[in-house]
Amino acid sequence: MGTLSGLFAPERVAVVGATDREGSVGRAILENLGAFDGDVVAVNPNREDVLGYRCYADVASVGEPVDLAVVVVPPSIAVPVVREAAEAGVENVVVVTAGFSETGADGASREGELKAVAAEYDLNLVGPNCLGVMNTTVDMNATFGPEMALPGSVSFMSQSGAFITAVLDWAADQGIGFKDVVSLGNKAVLDETDFVREWGDDPDTDVVLGYLESVQDGQEFLEAARETTRETPVAVVKSGRTDAGAKAASSHTGAIAGSEAAYEAGLEQAGVLRADSVQELFDSARALSGLPLPDSDDVAVVTNAGGPGVMATDAIGDSTLSLASFGDDTLDTFREVLPEEANIYNPVDVIGDASVERFTTAVDAALSDPNVSSAVVVSAPTAVLDFEELAEALVDVQAEHGKPVVASLMGGSRTEPAVEKLRTAGIPNYFDPARAVDSLDALARQRRITEREYVEPTTFDVDREAARDILMDAKERDDNRLGVEAMGLLDAYGIETPAGEVVDEPADAVTVAENIDGPVVMKIVSPDILHKSDIGGVKVGVANENVYDAYEDLVARATNYQPDATILGVQVQEMVDLDDGTETIVGVNRDPQFGPLVLFGLGGIFVEVLEDTTLRVAPVSEPEAREMIDEVKAAPLLRGARGRTPADVEGVIETIQRLSQLVTDFPAILELDINPLVAGPDGVRAVDVRLTVDTDQL
Amino acid sequence: MGTLSGLFAPERVAVVGATDREGSVGRAILENLGAFDGDVVAVNPNREDVLGYRCYADVASVGEPVDLAVVVVPPSIAVPVVREAAEAGVENVVVVTAGFSETGADGASREGELKAVAAEYDLNLVGPNCLGVMNTTVDMNATFGPEMALPGSVSFMSQSGAFITAVLDWAADQGIGFKDVVSLGNKAVLDETDFVREWGDDPDTDVVLGYLESVQDGQEFLEAARETTRETPVAVVKSGRTDAGAKAASSHTGAIAGSEAAYEAGLEQAGVLRADSVQELFDSARALSGLPLPDSDDVAVVTNAGGPGVMATDAIGDSTLSLASFGDDTLDTFREVLPEEANIYNPVDVIGDASVERFTTAVDAALSDPNVSSAVVVSAPTAVLDFEELAEALVDVQAEHGKPVVASLMGGSRTEPAVEKLRTAGIPNYFDPARAVDSLDALARQRRITEREYVEPTTFDVDREAARDILMDAKERDDNRLGVEAMGLLDAYGIETPAGEVVDEPADAVTVAENIDGPVVMKIVSPDILHKSDIGGVKVGVANENVYDAYEDLVARATNYQPDATILGVQVQEMVDLDDGTETIVGVNRDPQFGPLVLFGLGGIFVEVLEDTTLRVAPVSEPEAREMIDEVKAAPLLRGARGRTPADVEGVIETIQRLSQLVTDFPAILELDINPLVAGPDGVRAVDVRLTVDTDQL
Repeated sequence: MGTLSGLFAPERVAVVGATDREGSVGRAILENLGAFDGDVVAVNPNREDVLGYRCYADVASVGEPVDLAVVVVPPSIAVPVVREAAEAGVENVVVVTAGFSETGADGASREGELKAVAAEYDLNLVGPNCLGVMNTTVDMNATFGPEMALPGSVSFMSQSGAFITAVLDWAADQGIGFKDVVSLGNKAVLDETDFVREWGDDPDTDVVLGYLESVQDGQEFLEAARETTRETPVAVVKSGRTDAGAKAASSHTGAIAGSEAAYEAGLEQAGVLRADSVQELFDSARALSGLPLPDSDDVAVVTNAGGPGVMATDAIGDSTLSLASFGDDTLDTFREVLPEEANIYNPVDVIGDASVERFTTAVDAALSDPNVSSAVVVSAPTAVLDFEELAEALVDVQAEHGKPVVASLMGGSRTEPAVEKLRTAGIPNYFDPARAVDSLDALARQRRITEREYVEPTTFDVDREAARDILMDAKERDDNRLGVEAMGLLDAYGIETPAGEVVDEPADAVTVAENIDGPVVMKIVSPDILHKSDIGGVKVGVANENVYDAYEDLVARATNYQPDATILGVQVQEMVDLDDGTETIVGVNRDPQFGPLVLFGLGGIFVEVLEDTTLRVAPVSEPEAREMIDEVKAAPLLRGARGRTPADVEGVIETIQRLSQLVTDFPAILELDINPLVAGPDGVRAVDVRLTVDTDQL
Repeated sequence: MGTLSGLFAPERVAVVGATDREGSVGRAILENLGAFDGDVVAVNPNREDVLGYRCYADVASVGEPVDLAVVVVPPSIAVPVVREAAEAGVENVVVVTAGFSETGADGASREGELKAVAAEYDLNLVGPNCLGVMNTTVDMNATFGPEMALPGSVSFMSQSGAFITAVLDWAADQGIGFKDVVSLGNKAVLDETDFVREWGDDPDTDVVLGYLESVQDGQEFLEAARETTRETPVAVVKSGRTDAGAKAASSHTGAIAGSEAAYEAGLEQAGVLRADSVQELFDSARALSGLPLPDSDDVAVVTNAGGPGVMATDAIGDSTLSLASFGDDTLDTFREVLPEEANIYNPVDVIGDASVERFTTAVDAALSDPNVSSAVVVSAPTAVLDFEELAEALVDVQAEHGKPVVASLMGGSRTEPAVEKLRTAGIPNYFDPARAVDSLDALARQRRITEREYVEPTTFDVDREAARDILMDAKERDDNRLGVEAMGLLDAYGIETPAGEVVDEPADAVTVAENIDGPVVMKIVSPDILHKSDIGGVKVGVANENVYDAYEDLVARATNYQPDATILGVQVQEMVDLDDGTETIVGVNRDPQFGPLVLFGLGGIFVEVLEDTTLRVAPVSEPEAREMIDEVKAAPLLRGARGRTPADVEGVIETIQRLSQLVTDFPAILELDINPLVAGPDGVRAVDVRLTVDTDQL
């Protein structure tokens, strides 16, 4: 039991705003609490009793401890009512009342007051603007929804109350049971992070499900979910995935959603199983709550019909699962027990005339194979097969082996008794073999999450003070867009840059150039000139004897182009041999929910035309940085495809982590691109940098 | 009615091999034919009567015309029995009997005999090794499956008989009705192409569905399906999509399936809606059979619950549909009839307290908008809404506007009466809003197929004789792998190549070089040396004065590398400036089912590392060639992305078509790659070519 036990399993609940008015929310909640195992008290200063409950003027008057107050008073008095309850010692409050931030400025300011009260009294507050909460272990339905959930081991949070009512009605028919259900409402205080943490600590919750339209604090959520998903699967529909959906979600909740790319990266890093639809969410939940996780991805398909067996096999090909290769013993068993025409290789076809016994023997043999970690059983209806008997046998064989089994006994409502038998034992059945396979895939994905090793991000030894000085210099200049003049930031964080300096005298340029082997690159440095090449502000391959003139020419071009431009000087830089290396880009921008997002991709067309990039929420650990390289399609080019010399991939991996550390240390850096980061065989070099800084944060 | 009317709607059916033996296939078929509108006769020389039917010794003895013979005799006598029936004038035969090509060499030879008889008598023959056929208009169930289909307008063919039994059992509960059902079996005579053609001509078939593991003749199927899909949607699960699935399918049917890439291209070119799962297949069928096609992709979402509305919107973002923008009149109506808190922009949220009237008024207003072509109605259950009344109202408003409407009335079995009302009117309902949207998407995809303009492939004026001569020369040399010595093939088909020739004397090399501006490229030409560069067999930028020596050096290197290599000479070629152009690849290989497949991609890493390619079955029309360019992700590079000079895209499009014509004219060309085809601003040049020829076909 977590820290929210008083919320989900209170001993006494007060309904504040209780009434017997027909069709009112107050009445609906009181009625729904009829089956509650604990005490229910009604609070309403205008009544003596409501629906047979004695009615108190306020929570303090109850005279006994109240663990949970469900508030359904009008919005105008909601805040004082919550304060009264808190003063009376109530620690858990569900504010069902609507009329807060979802309704405009007045509502938002009311929500601010509510938050302040909650903070003052350290309240566990759900809502406002929500349907309520449920807990089946104490038969508590503290919602105004139409019906109580079946008991079960799935705990469910939803940012849409209407979705809860729809799901509960449907789930009851589907035999899906719940432990806790919470309608998140406006998430003024408690949000998805709190519930993910709570349910991660709850031995009675086997699966956490969520419908979310936004995440309040991405970094906190990531941390909590990472911890929970090591043991307890968390599956979520995060809606607003598409541009149209995101617009609709924001007009619905008023919440600022972060970018889809950030959610995708963040949820993946957190180990959350993301579902794209309601069907996928509940198909996953069913498998995750009913079956053990497989030990590997290797699946056996056992079928009495070739075609549907092929469909299951295709679905395995589409999933993260793979077809198991049977061991010799298993093949021998198949040869013995199956007719000669049977296909004994995976998918095993026991042939249309298979009895329950033959079918089950084959499933048993497959599950006995150490190369097999799970099974999909697919059956067309035949004259010789009783689905109910088959279901019973499958339940036994699954229990015996303790490996997950999913079924596709294909037929109409006549299969219902068989399906019911499977369901009771936790085995999902779908008419569509592909859907059965997909539900098994959720188990395999969860297994990989539990096996992940979370490595703390490396903390490199860096010169934080030097970096701060560079940013403070920019602040003094009131300059929030920096270019090569900020290369020192990278140096300070141990990211190699070409030799060179920014100088503001032609003579200094000559001195710098003389200390560099070979010809140099010279670039005008000005916060007012973003596209240096367009105005001829870059000169490549400048020999020492031409450096002085080149300096003057660059400044003249800049002044000519924009007479009032601030010119910080000229960068004189070592030439980096691009032929020898591969251009990559490492960049960062900030997401409103998740904070700094680190991007990696190959330079030029790979990022700009092919959009072949990958993202992680910072701080990025070493294994995460390594995954990033492998995730871009062009990765083989770095690793030496087509006769190239392999680039220093380890150097790129380290650069990603060092950049991650830089932007984590300095929240003032809003965006930063190293473009290109040239990865050669013997090292990497950051050739150019651009960043945007919020100087107010310095 | 098509040409197979005698098969699907016979007046008299003979069951050959009729028996009353319990559990026999012959008995099952005779029983299933009990409800048939026409006459049924039993044929079995060993009986006088069977199950009350008079039994004849053979079909000829029936004495009246038999339109359809269903053959269930043992395989050993199946061929003579079919011949007897044919001699007695039967034109349509369904061979249910198994034991043909699916069982090995003997069976395959028996199937050959069966085909020969069918060809001799021009029989419409289904099977062998099949479940049988059904037609609901004459109540004919000539299968040994467990139950008859509900009547409807979907015609269904399946390469898996077991899948038919599974589907019929399930579909009856789902209210999905069929017109014809055919189990294709081994497809010895009639196959998917015949049925697609038949049902394309059948006014009673609104939708054609198929479960296929292979296509017998890809080119014929493509042609027939193209014709049918202009009017009648064809949706297909082609299984064996994945490597694992393809292997399973081939072991199941023994059929050689073509490559997945060929199916993908061919089915798309044919206008076939490909479904990845049974669920998707039937969800599409339901929408396509019940609803009109929309006029555009613009959808209105009307919901009483924000969250589920966002889910529908996300699903639209994932689909080929788009969210409609409402006109001012519509917005005015919404302002008038909806509460102030309602969101009047798409997705329209009529708010949780909406009555049936308010909900319906909103749907009506949305469908009245000329910018809206279809609607998705999403509703959570609420206290004030009766789903049955809402369903009735939706049926009316859909009928009034004649625009397709799909629904997601979200709830459990309590919604069943409402769902039934919608279903009867052709409106699909799904708990999952995303699934409702996906079914609507099938309509939008079909609309685009009906609107496609099929353009005949262009026939260019080419020198076919010159091409034949080059191939015949190779045949004479017994050479089936050709390189630059075959550049003339491209010239003959009007594909521009750099100036140059293959010569076999150093002096000739000098002459050729002198006629070319600037330095030349010289390459050794030998069928035995595939990787010329590896042995230094290519010299670039050779000035005229060095050509003689270069010739001798190339030959020396080749002889040194492989003393017995056949050396055809040296190619002396104009230098093509690659800096000025983009390397592309146009290639062809042959698929066993679909014939020549034309590939296009950008050269080098784009094909080899990024696999950024696209395919079409030849012959390729001009619009298809144009689509190919747009389909590769790197296309913007050709069109001038990132400051490049746009390449001659029209030249590439023409080259694709000319190559398509070449390989269509010469089936002996098994594979051919033009790599690179350099596309510059002012034209394209085929710089190198490699091909494999089956000289026996010349």
